[in-house]
Amino acid sequence: MMGARIQLLHLLGILLLASVSVSFGTSIRNHQESEGNSYSEENPFYFSSDSSFLTLYKNQYGHIRVLERFDQRSKRLENLEDYRLVEFKSKPQTLLLPHHADADFLLVVLSGRAILTLVNPDGNDTFILEPGYAQKIPAGTVFYLINPDENENLRVIKLAKPVNNPHKFQNFFLSSTEAQQSYLQGFSRNILEASFDSEFKDINKALFGEEYGKSKQEGVIVELSKEQIRQLCKHTKPSSSKTISSEDEPFNLKSLKPIYSNKYGKLYEITPKKNPQLRDFNIFLSNTDISEGGLYLPHYYSTAIVVIVVNKGEAKVELVGPREQEQKQEEEQEESRKVQKFRADLSEDDVFVIPAAYPVAINATSKFNFFAFGINAENSERNFLAGEKDNVMSEIPKQVLEVTFPGSGENVEKLIKKQKESFFVDAQPQQEKGGYKGRKGPLSSILGTLH
Amino acid sequence: MMGARIQLLHLLGILLLASVSVSFGTSIRNHQESEGNSYSEENPFYFSSDSSFLTLYKNQYGHIRVLERFDQRSKRLENLEDYRLVEFKSKPQTLLLPHHADADFLLVVLSGRAILTLVNPDGNDTFILEPGYAQKIPAGTVFYLINPDENENLRVIKLAKPVNNPHKFQNFFLSSTEAQQSYLQGFSRNILEASFDSEFKDINKALFGEEYGKSKQEGVIVELSKEQIRQLCKHTKPSSSKTISSEDEPFNLKSLKPIYSNKYGKLYEITPKKNPQLRDFNIFLSNTDISEGGLYLPHYYSTAIVVIVVNKGEAKVELVGPREQEQKQEEEQEESRKVQKFRADLSEDDVFVIPAAYPVAINATSKFNFFAFGINAENSERNFLAGEKDNVMSEIPKQVLEVTFPGSGENVEKLIKKQKESFFVDAQPQQEKGGYKGRKGPLSSILGTLH
Amino acid sequence: MMGARIQLLHLLGILLLASVSVSFGTSIRNHQESEGNSYSEENPFYFSSDSSFLTLYKNQYGHIRVLERFDQRSKRLENLEDYRLVEFKSKPQTLLLPHHADADFLLVVLSGRAILTLVNPDGNDTFILEPGYAQKIPAGTVFYLINPDENENLRVIKLAKPVNNPHKFQNFFLSSTEAQQSYLQGFSRNILEASFDSEFKDINKALFGEEYGKSKQEGVIVELSKEQIRQLCKHTKPSSSKTISSEDEPFNLKSLKPIYSNKYGKLYEITPKKNPQLRDFNIFLSNTDISEGGLYLPHYYSTAIVVIVVNKGEAKVELVGPREQEQKQEEEQEESRKVQKFRADLSEDDVFVIPAAYPVAINATSKFNFFAFGINAENSERNFLAGEKDNVMSEIPKQVLEVTFPGSGENVEKLIKKQKESFFVDAQPQQEKGGYKGRKGPLSSILGTLH
Repeated sequence: MMGARIQLLHLLGILLLASVSVSFGTSIRNHQESEGNSYSEENPFYFSSDSSFLTLYKNQYGHIRVLERFDQRSKRLENLEDYRLVEFKSKPQTLLLPHHADADFLLVVLSGRAILTLVNPDGNDTFILEPGYAQKIPAGTVFYLINPDENENLRVIKLAKPVNNPHKFQNFFLSSTEAQQSYLQGFSRNILEASFDSEFKDINKALFGEEYGKSKQEGVIVELSKEQIRQLCKHTKPSSSKTISSEDEPFNLKSLKPIYSNKYGKLYEITPKKNPQLRDFNIFLSNTDISEGGLYLPHYYSTAIVVIVVNKGEAKVELVGPREQEQKQEEEQEESRKVQKFRADLSEDDVFVIPAAYPVAINATSKFNFFAFGINAENSERNFLAGEKDNVMSEIPKQVLEVTFPGSGENVEKLIKKQKESFFVDAQPQQEKGGYKGRKGPLSSILGTLH
Repeated sequence: MMGARIQLLHLLGILLLASVSVSFGTSIRNHQESEGNSYSEENPFYFSSDSSFLTLYKNQYGHIRVLERFDQRSKRLENLEDYRLVEFKSKPQTLLLPHHADADFLLVVLSGRAILTLVNPDGNDTFILEPGYAQKIPAGTVFYLINPDENENLRVIKLAKPVNNPHKFQNFFLSSTEAQQSYLQGFSRNILEASFDSEFKDINKALFGEEYGKSKQEGVIVELSKEQIRQLCKHTKPSSSKTISSEDEPFNLKSLKPIYSNKYGKLYEITPKKNPQLRDFNIFLSNTDISEGGLYLPHYYSTAIVVIVVNKGEAKVELVGPREQEQKQEEEQEESRKVQKFRADLSEDDVFVIPAAYPVAINATSKFNFFAFGINAENSERNFLAGEKDNVMSEIPKQVLEVTFPGSGENVEKLIKKQKESFFVDAQPQQEKGGYKGRKGPLSSILGTLH
Repeated sequence: MMGARIQLLHLLGILLLASVSVSFGTSIRNHQESEGNSYSEENPFYFSSDSSFLTLYKNQYGHIRVLERFDQRSKRLENLEDYRLVEFKSKPQTLLLPHHADADFLLVVLSGRAILTLVNPDGNDTFILEPGYAQKIPAGTVFYLINPDENENLRVIKLAKPVNNPHKFQNFFLSSTEAQQSYLQGFSRNILEASFDSEFKDINKALFGEEYGKSKQEGVIVELSKEQIRQLCKHTKPSSSKTISSEDEPFNLKSLKPIYSNKYGKLYEITPKKNPQLRDFNIFLSNTDISEGGLYLPHYYSTAIVVIVVNKGEAKVELVGPREQEQKQEEEQEESRKVQKFRADLSEDDVFVIPAAYPVAINATSKFNFFAFGINAENSERNFLAGEKDNVMSEIPKQVLEVTFPGSGENVEKLIKKQKESFFVDAQPQQEKGGYKGRKGPLSSILGTLH
């Protein structure tokens, strides 16, 4: 009896290790979170291209990857639980085979050119998409994607909103390849025979090819010959014959004027109010260019949770927020709570999430470009904390600044209004303007600590 | 100390068994799921009438049962977590006593006749409902339901959307029966006296009857005499005096023409766009007849998750989907993923759920009729994978078919376009048309494996 | 090996104690819940001011407290998981420093006077709020709050709907105090220098004051001199210069006529249909006065989950509901389920939640006033179970009453229609009307058991 009890406990111990290790994982992450003070350290809002994506399909012609769940990274991102981010890359002259998924997608082309075809029961719509073009692919719509270019890779990002489960979606491929079986093969022989009004051997020969020695496709991304691409492009209907209303056609982020633009940076943005596809998602979409050495001034989004995807270049991002309060039932005044700092070095393909209300600043260390999905965008405002325009601090009356800050009202006001640029500024102004004594630029900040 | 530690561990062991058994339950279910290849085997989308309902009330005159939670059956149904399905059956000449619930209900009569009365503070609405009639009962509305028929049982299905908790709802009965106490008895004596401006003994005598020897009702479903039914039907107001707008009146699924109809089947459907009550739920409601030996061609719903309730007859259902991917961070190409097959033999009172985007085919083995609730119906389309009309496969251009399937473009196109019927076809066409060599019907498929 | 195993188990034991104690907490609470029969006992819907709030900030000038999570109190409140309740109190002549939060707030002034300023990038809006005034503060909006009164404390309640996480929100303070660091101090030195186009020592001097010996504010609530208040009030713009549309201005609960009013009580209510700010939240807001000895007749809300906050006085509340069903797969008729009774003695600052469809009655033992947030208010109705008007029971036809209750149809109808008052009545009617034999008032009910 005693032995049995020990064995039971031993069994329990083994069963528990799984859940225990999960707890450890969490506490380790939290530990790192609270010490996130130096650049490039792990922080819950930074998803590196190398280690945060899960590969769904991969062969010599390209891959499909999905970013790990936002809501499992941090409790602070729990309201992103209904969203996933998907990356698709393919080599020149390739085709992503026809399939549908149980998720709504908002697709954006980052680089390269794509020919996207949406197949509907009453016809097709084929679109040529350049970088900065976006298109909604509704759940259940069969689509395929061609990279027709002879030289350039295609890179596409999709924000996914799954239908059956908040976190998971499935791709349903029509054809059998080495990567997966056609879903049609799931139906029994007699259902297929009655459905196609044909003998099973003919169905098998045409659709599955199992017994006929014809080599299957290596995977869901396949190579096309120039002739095949020519044929498929020929098939592309002129836009006048499109069956979907213009509301459902692709839209170009850069077709509008940038909402901010100076020599340090440019911001293109389309809001839900301006586009019906974005209204369905309640998402804004933006594209930002920052010049080398440019600084995107500290700002926060009032209600939008913003997922940024780095397209080109490198930058340092700084995000700040209050340390999480334990919210204990203690009456005593706790010691002063320090601000939490979340910093990361961003480079191509990285993802970074800016929670609503969290102030952020981005310092481009090379010519930098990123796309952003602003989730929960309705009525969201971008509030700047410095600069000439949209600066929420400059609207606080002097009498309130006086009691809020240690400096005199005049001094604080002077400081807040000193920066004459807006939105994007030079991160090292002294190099242009002659500088002022003791002023350190970002590149000299480490040396600066030795002074 | 050692003994105490062992005892603590023993205690922990016992405490753990509960949660451990839950884990076992899950892993066993998943195991079955992944091997779900033969007919009638357990699969997460099939809810048999015998083992998937929980009885809330039951006596000699009828019962109320609730289906187990969808979201606890499978992660693939997690987005159904806000819905429950309720079945009510009652014998001829009975009354379900007045009550309200903390859930919105969409009620559909499957068979028999019902007199439904909704009680509002400003008046009553009484409706006679035939099979195929549907009516919303808003949360908190007191209602009662009579089966006035002299011979036929009444069978009603309600889709419930609870208000206080996503998964649970409660029924609040006004009267005390052997099954439960009146909720009015929860108030203290002096509150009741002040509320009714009466002595407690008079309240008790009139409403609860506890001390007066008058036998309580046996349960919440009670027998009515012919005279009582006559009195209650007399009370039914003519429809001109109804206090609710026509938007809130019952609607009849079969009042419109079927959207599909041929000799193998018929489909009646009302979408949210056509009915304000369905718009509140964002649900479509449909009723489908399939002739004996008829096949409802393989199809999928683009965004709707469809809960079907079998009304009459028997059928084999086949649902297919991609095997769940582990989504590991592996770079190597995994071996080909097989399709997952979910099959079941459906009979009266069974429930089956079709997740969005999952292809399904239904083969009636006897005259078959079912109702369906299409949850998340807005913009959902029914895409067929075979047949003349609404066949999404027939819209894929030949050049794409060519690279997608092993057969030549011509052969694949020919196969896809061979079936001249739409929606419903004969599952054993060779018996009518003379058949073709080697073709097996469903009844001979087992024998077929011996050839 | 054996020793290691024991140690591992010991470790597991320790790790488990945390989760086990949580389970114990739950089972104890449930136990109390099911026996909640006597006044003032713990019940899941009652949140006492003393033990249910978590202090976020507290100093000699006031405090900010947040109520514990509704959804963690009871499964029956799981659909309140997106809401938190915040209480703010401050002494005369004080300022709550400028900050923003990642939550939408619906603010209501319970007592005292407040000057509320919303800071937007394009200007300010300052409002003087009296008791009964309400105002939405959108997520991300910087605001500050002055108690300008020379004598009276200010008490404010905010219903919070967090943006990044369903349960948690954070306050972002601009200034560094003993309670917390300014979030601006989270940015690195060079980002701050470039943003403000100034040297770090000047920024530090003006905004953080760390090295200059100027004593920091003691906390986020600070004292103001009469002169400072005069200056800040001078700054208050006349209402004609307001930059937000009148839709976004504060609204006064008592500006409309009460919807119920007699000598025993008064109810003021604004519904989502009447106010765009409430429409955003889908919440109704109400204020109720009950005279000493008055009874708010038993009633329930059809779809709204109502959070009441006691402003002044004392009352006994009685809430009733069906006992939770185990929902086992048992075919046998269970024994009669008793009603569950949830009672509490309410006093100032207490919170009580009334789930949708649960009947409730409130008996004021002194002059009683409370505010209420009705969550999920759209189409919700207040159904009374006694009284002359809006009494849902009086609409049930006599023939149905006859079979529902043990008394004869005539007797039951007579009882239901006896109470001639509506909504609010005298809880001890016999003292006014001369009483009737054997009738006990609430104050004599204990003595009554000795008769």
